[in-house]
Amino acid sequence: MAEGRVSIREVGPRDGLQREAPLEPRQRLALIEALARCGFADMEVAAFVSARAVPAMAGAAEVVAGLPTGVGCAWWALVPNLTGADHALAAGIADVSVTVSASEGYSRRNVGMGVEESCAEAMAIIERVPRADVVISCSFGSPYEAAIDPGALASMVERFTGAGASVTLADTTGVASPRRLREVLALTGPQVGLHLHDTRGSALVNAYAALELGITRFDTSVGGLGGSPFSDDAGGNLATEDLVSLLDDLGRPTGIALDRLVDVDELLGDLLARPLPGRVAEAELAKRARGRPPA
Amino acid sequence: MAEGRVSIREVGPRDGLQREAPLEPRQRLALIEALARCGFADMEVAAFVSARAVPAMAGAAEVVAGLPTGVGCAWWALVPNLTGADHALAAGIADVSVTVSASEGYSRRNVGMGVEESCAEAMAIIERVPRADVVISCSFGSPYEAAIDPGALASMVERFTGAGASVTLADTTGVASPRRLREVLALTGPQVGLHLHDTRGSALVNAYAALELGITRFDTSVGGLGGSPFSDDAGGNLATEDLVSLLDDLGRPTGIALDRLVDVDELLGDLLARPLPGRVAEAELAKRARGRPPA
Repeated sequence: MAEGRVSIREVGPRDGLQREAPLEPRQRLALIEALARCGFADMEVAAFVSARAVPAMAGAAEVVAGLPTGVGCAWWALVPNLTGADHALAAGIADVSVTVSASEGYSRRNVGMGVEESCAEAMAIIERVPRADVVISCSFGSPYEAAIDPGALASMVERFTGAGASVTLADTTGVASPRRLREVLALTGPQVGLHLHDTRGSALVNAYAALELGITRFDTSVGGLGGSPFSDDAGGNLATEDLVSLLDDLGRPTGIALDRLVDVDELLGDLLARPLPGRVAEAELAKRARGRPPA
Repeated sequence: MAEGRVSIREVGPRDGLQREAPLEPRQRLALIEALARCGFADMEVAAFVSARAVPAMAGAAEVVAGLPTGVGCAWWALVPNLTGADHALAAGIADVSVTVSASEGYSRRNVGMGVEESCAEAMAIIERVPRADVVISCSFGSPYEAAIDPGALASMVERFTGAGASVTLADTTGVASPRRLREVLALTGPQVGLHLHDTRGSALVNAYAALELGITRFDTSVGGLGGSPFSDDAGGNLATEDLVSLLDDLGRPTGIALDRLVDVDELLGDLLARPLPGRVAEAELAKRARGRPPA
């Protein structure tokens, strides 16, 4: 197993909430402030997308305007196209996640463009923004095609990194596996980030296999919330608590305090009024509940 | 990663059901018959324990009397003491799981004996039955002690294997981790089986780490059911489907058909009238539901 620091970008306020009943910007800011206290250096806080397509992400500029200052966290916003990038820049965002897809079918549903058109748009966004991370959805498989060609994926990665962006491979529908990760990462190299979903309960084992392959950058979502509004096959994100718990045990530093994440779980449970899918969150909240006198 | 066959003992009809509202022996036999069609070579089907302490396991002799014949599966029954072993033998069981614990506090709650007394009883059972597997609960940690000494655990393993039994290490409250597994298995060697619980969502990553360490024998429970009636901290077992899905992907033969397991999930969902915790079960049942015309 490799050693050293692992970077976690918290995507709960964006991916985590995008399929939930919409929360007001002030509620999302309360979540962001609570998360900032956990020690994240990177957080995805908004998406500049159509409010009609993704109602839960409406009010992105208001969220960005209300972000806490002086917490030493890079605030990321997701954009699907140049219009979104311009809105993000106008709102004051410097760190831009650009969503493209390795799947033609998913790309058309998600951003209304084919893969090549969307990648060309991403290249233009990379030129326009201070810092870009291109997130390639369906990197390990898609419900709309028989298979994703890892060679074509590696070419996409090379194209974006050649233009100065970082790249994150997303397992949008939770179909990755340790074997598949090994095949894909052999072609892309371990400099990519991973954005894993837990549809089949394999997100954590995939993260572990990826750590063994040298990956040091992950997107996770507090409480294991999240999932694509554009696929029935999408489950929640890899839960931040589950990954931090594993990394703590392995002695890999993250800078993130697990007990504070559980504080956020309590807040989030109240905001959403439903149990969280994250397993460490569930176990730790149950422990806290048992430790309290009966109400 | 090692190669070759992995043995899975299905414990759903025993551990999986022991905390559920009791099912009749005929319902448990329907489950066992459906599981036998999946290809298991080992299945734990009953526990000869106090019906007062574990009402869901009442009627063990009736279950054993009704077991299907000619399916090539070894039928295991769990026993906590010599009385249970005698009842199991009288019912016709040849393959006996003996439950002991590495935790003094858990041992007293689970079998009403301290660790040493329970281990002496296990040694007597090993002499009396045709084949014994000693399952050591709380092998990786316990809610009742600060820590479990891996050296003492390794001595227990040596004692039982020296007497001719196989040994399975159980993570009763789901506190194992890849690091902890490495520490413990370095002392016990990889000939032990593992019985993992998923309290914190780490059962599958622990299984993967164990496979890398050479473990080839696992207890799992269909649908991820199960958990100890004697600890609030206990979550369900590692789901059979989740492990088989991982092993299929890794190319490790198990002899078990995943699609038939999903048939069992449908039956089990009907019997228990609640969603199953297993993640592959949930994803596959959702896929089947979407593939059907609306009711």
